[in-house]
Amino acid sequence: MLGFSVPRSPQGRAALTPPPPWFYAGNLLLVDYGADPEAVAAVLPPGLTPDPDDPGGAVAFFVDWQYASTSGHERTDPVLSQYHEFFVLVNAVHDRVKVQTCPYIYVDRDTSMARGWIQGWPKKLGQVHTTRPFPLPSPAAPQVAPGGQFGASLSANGRRLAEATLNLERVSADPVFLGRRPIINVRYFPRLTAGQHNQPAVHELVKSLLSGATRTDIWEGPATLAYFPAPDAELDALAPRHVRRGYRYSTAFQVDDLHVLTDLTGQQPQ
Amino acid sequence: MLGFSVPRSPQGRAALTPPPPWFYAGNLLLVDYGADPEAVAAVLPPGLTPDPDDPGGAVAFFVDWQYASTSGHERTDPVLSQYHEFFVLVNAVHDRVKVQTCPYIYVDRDTSMARGWIQGWPKKLGQVHTTRPFPLPSPAAPQVAPGGQFGASLSANGRRLAEATLNLERVSADPVFLGRRPIINVRYFPRLTAGQHNQPAVHELVKSLLSGATRTDIWEGPATLAYFPAPDAELDALAPRHVRRGYRYSTAFQVDDLHVLTDLTGQQPQ
Amino acid sequence: MLGFSVPRSPQGRAALTPPPPWFYAGNLLLVDYGADPEAVAAVLPPGLTPDPDDPGGAVAFFVDWQYASTSGHERTDPVLSQYHEFFVLVNAVHDRVKVQTCPYIYVDRDTSMARGWIQGWPKKLGQVHTTRPFPLPSPAAPQVAPGGQFGASLSANGRRLAEATLNLERVSADPVFLGRRPIINVRYFPRLTAGQHNQPAVHELVKSLLSGATRTDIWEGPATLAYFPAPDAELDALAPRHVRRGYRYSTAFQVDDLHVLTDLTGQQPQ
Amino acid sequence: MLGFSVPRSPQGRAALTPPPPWFYAGNLLLVDYGADPEAVAAVLPPGLTPDPDDPGGAVAFFVDWQYASTSGHERTDPVLSQYHEFFVLVNAVHDRVKVQTCPYIYVDRDTSMARGWIQGWPKKLGQVHTTRPFPLPSPAAPQVAPGGQFGASLSANGRRLAEATLNLERVSADPVFLGRRPIINVRYFPRLTAGQHNQPAVHELVKSLLSGATRTDIWEGPATLAYFPAPDAELDALAPRHVRRGYRYSTAFQVDDLHVLTDLTGQQPQ
Repeated sequence: MLGFSVPRSPQGRAALTPPPPWFYAGNLLLVDYGADPEAVAAVLPPGLTPDPDDPGGAVAFFVDWQYASTSGHERTDPVLSQYHEFFVLVNAVHDRVKVQTCPYIYVDRDTSMARGWIQGWPKKLGQVHTTRPFPLPSPAAPQVAPGGQFGASLSANGRRLAEATLNLERVSADPVFLGRRPIINVRYFPRLTAGQHNQPAVHELVKSLLSGATRTDIWEGPATLAYFPAPDAELDALAPRHVRRGYRYSTAFQVDDLHVLTDLTGQQPQ
Repeated sequence: MLGFSVPRSPQGRAALTPPPPWFYAGNLLLVDYGADPEAVAAVLPPGLTPDPDDPGGAVAFFVDWQYASTSGHERTDPVLSQYHEFFVLVNAVHDRVKVQTCPYIYVDRDTSMARGWIQGWPKKLGQVHTTRPFPLPSPAAPQVAPGGQFGASLSANGRRLAEATLNLERVSADPVFLGRRPIINVRYFPRLTAGQHNQPAVHELVKSLLSGATRTDIWEGPATLAYFPAPDAELDALAPRHVRRGYRYSTAFQVDDLHVLTDLTGQQPQ
Repeated sequence: MLGFSVPRSPQGRAALTPPPPWFYAGNLLLVDYGADPEAVAAVLPPGLTPDPDDPGGAVAFFVDWQYASTSGHERTDPVLSQYHEFFVLVNAVHDRVKVQTCPYIYVDRDTSMARGWIQGWPKKLGQVHTTRPFPLPSPAAPQVAPGGQFGASLSANGRRLAEATLNLERVSADPVFLGRRPIINVRYFPRLTAGQHNQPAVHELVKSLLSGATRTDIWEGPATLAYFPAPDAELDALAPRHVRRGYRYSTAFQVDDLHVLTDLTGQQPQ
Repeated sequence: MLGFSVPRSPQGRAALTPPPPWFYAGNLLLVDYGADPEAVAAVLPPGLTPDPDDPGGAVAFFVDWQYASTSGHERTDPVLSQYHEFFVLVNAVHDRVKVQTCPYIYVDRDTSMARGWIQGWPKKLGQVHTTRPFPLPSPAAPQVAPGGQFGASLSANGRRLAEATLNLERVSADPVFLGRRPIINVRYFPRLTAGQHNQPAVHELVKSLLSGATRTDIWEGPATLAYFPAPDAELDALAPRHVRRGYRYSTAFQVDDLHVLTDLTGQQPQ
């Protein structure tokens, strides 16, 4: 039986994800903002403490991704390679280093959801749309140029959970981007055996490793961001108190490793 | 009651489509090919005859569109502006002019389906994916450059109906593109009244009018194309006998008019 | 070229809908309520006037449908036969008869959307979920029995537009149901030719004809209903001021005819 | 941080799945058949051996589920409680007991996918449709009665992977049903740390525990079943060599426990 994840199969083609390395190319719209510091503190995993210099600091990302494995067949069968993602990163400190962690993340493809669980990104399914720029002038699409207007939204289970807009002003001299701070997440896989529902089989603090990252110019401008409530989400607890700036760029990188920082299985989940 | 289409409403916001002009920006992957000339002849509407110089000539298009109305609010709420489309155009002659007509077309959004019916594009729902190019080198995405590998697919009701690949070679000196020939379609809206099921209320031969079209360079290269059968489709009757070349480019235009050529309601539908 | 609707094709299999008769079987959850009488008056088509005895009267329907054409092949290929629907009917008077008309309706399948346009139901795409009853006791599903709790929701473009609940009390002695009043709708198909955007090709007041309707017992009980705003909908203008009762039952019928009452094309759309 | 699974959150509402018990109500269409014994042997996990009396024995299930947690709020918000599932069980022997194991399973909801991974069901996303019976005679729906015709299908990523039909004959005296044999699955959660990609963090042989199962009469009749290939699936290797009988019934049960049989992490994945 072959395959990096379930379902493992004789040829290994059935698995939700083939083995790393995993290659990514993405167009990102992100909004840097300040949330309620208590709400941020409430989503920090064990081992992380609030960032004293910016305890409510958070960033909302809306991304159009293309993915390929080593075989690369996904590139020309784009139903297998394209997905859309929303996630929020909040500020924290780990071992005296300023870091970020991801409490909530949504994607629209099972393969990405599976890779997320394995990496420590706690992915659920959602629908994400982000305005695409265009190489020709048109009322139907912005250009990556001063005045370019972009928007983005997230919904899950038929409810809108987040929306954002961004008006491009200029290439940023000091941009916010994915990976500017180290990202610390939690791998968590529960047990179903009676009496062990609070004793997960896997509970690890991990550091994401993105290798070979390249980026285009990062544009910035004024932005808006709003979150909305839903019975199966707590994203709105991290709603903006004040929005800073929005950013837009493209990036490429690969993932083939993960740094396990702490085994938390000895701790009773809080 | 306001609104260009149903549902008409007090403020006109509920309508599937606001009034023209409609603005479009799109990234197109297309494959020029030869189908069975008898199959092409069988889908020509009244008034069109086979193109004697290329009676099986056809082009398959896979497109990522963004759309906006005059108000432009769709641009920053991209769930309302983005859709994906597949269509096939076949060669014909109308009134001694070489033209094309669209027998089959699929989109993934109701607003586009409604506009299609009104324009004479016989749209159904389907899912279309097309590889996106990328501004940075990555195994996850091609660049618009020699060697760039693209793919595309169409499915409807959970069945794959079409797939294509294209390897970019060079900017084309004599490209195939949307609008190179005039496009003649059929507006058709039936009656449900008993005894009149074969007497449509609207049955018109119409000429599409795309105004203000701009295009990027059009790249070309070798391509593949395949169609697959389904109980609710006859696309596979137009399957390639030989594939010519594939093309990729971006375009923008607007639609606000339609030229009605012939009222066919006097004719009994064949 | 064969086919009752577009796309017409050599064998007639490609059309969005085959010719009538169309057979339907459905499970309905509906909520009878009172809306703002002015909001109801504002959605009445030409020829209909408010019901003086219940000018705000309205009913919201959530339905799980199965459909088959004469060939019946859809029955064993349920991806072709199943769809879900939400619609609201509002009270009116036509020619001194108490009737209802449908301003807004959502389905999740293109074939039903096409049949709707042809019949005068102004269908858009939406996602509708309705609790299913179950023949065995379970915390996961209600029974059609006193105390049975049902819910339903509508969303479109990732926004929740409507939600309802119903607690069954008893078989109703005087139920509200689909078809209790005649249903008068509007067939409307615009022209795109410049200068004629307000001169629809088809604009008819029509009366729906459901033949051979059968119904199970109709259960009733206390209900809730709420509508929510969206930029592309005006359903919330018809939100409940007071909710009356909810009802649940199953029905079957066929459609093969439509009564055209008035040609409105001479009137300038309001 | 509360929640049985990721994402864990301050209130525990964000988690893909709340803690057990999980309650299920489902309508099942299943087809009992014989696959290639070598193909069945190739998907057995460590510790299971072919069933010498029926080495190619397999059953394909198509199910409409409703789910609720202890809180039960999913019951009246059916977008949270309804999902559709396909899975195949193959025969095997474990510790001299005749059992079944699930190599492939598809659902259309993230919550069910997450619970599946935790239970050892290797779920991916797919779309499943199953004909619904109806309490009134209609060409649009079968009744649970002799002659009732049912169909079902599975697709994933826009490709049809499986389809089945069943014609009801009679209540079965010796039916095949879910749980007739014990079900042994594999919990598997990989490591991403470089050098450990073949050393999963969790690799356990587990026995599913369905408690409190109730069933309606189980109807049987002649059936058909077909599987189709896809680049990201190996289901077609288990295609029918001969189809036995089909069955249809409803069931309810709960899940709140799992029996871990063997820790396989010491074994190098094959």
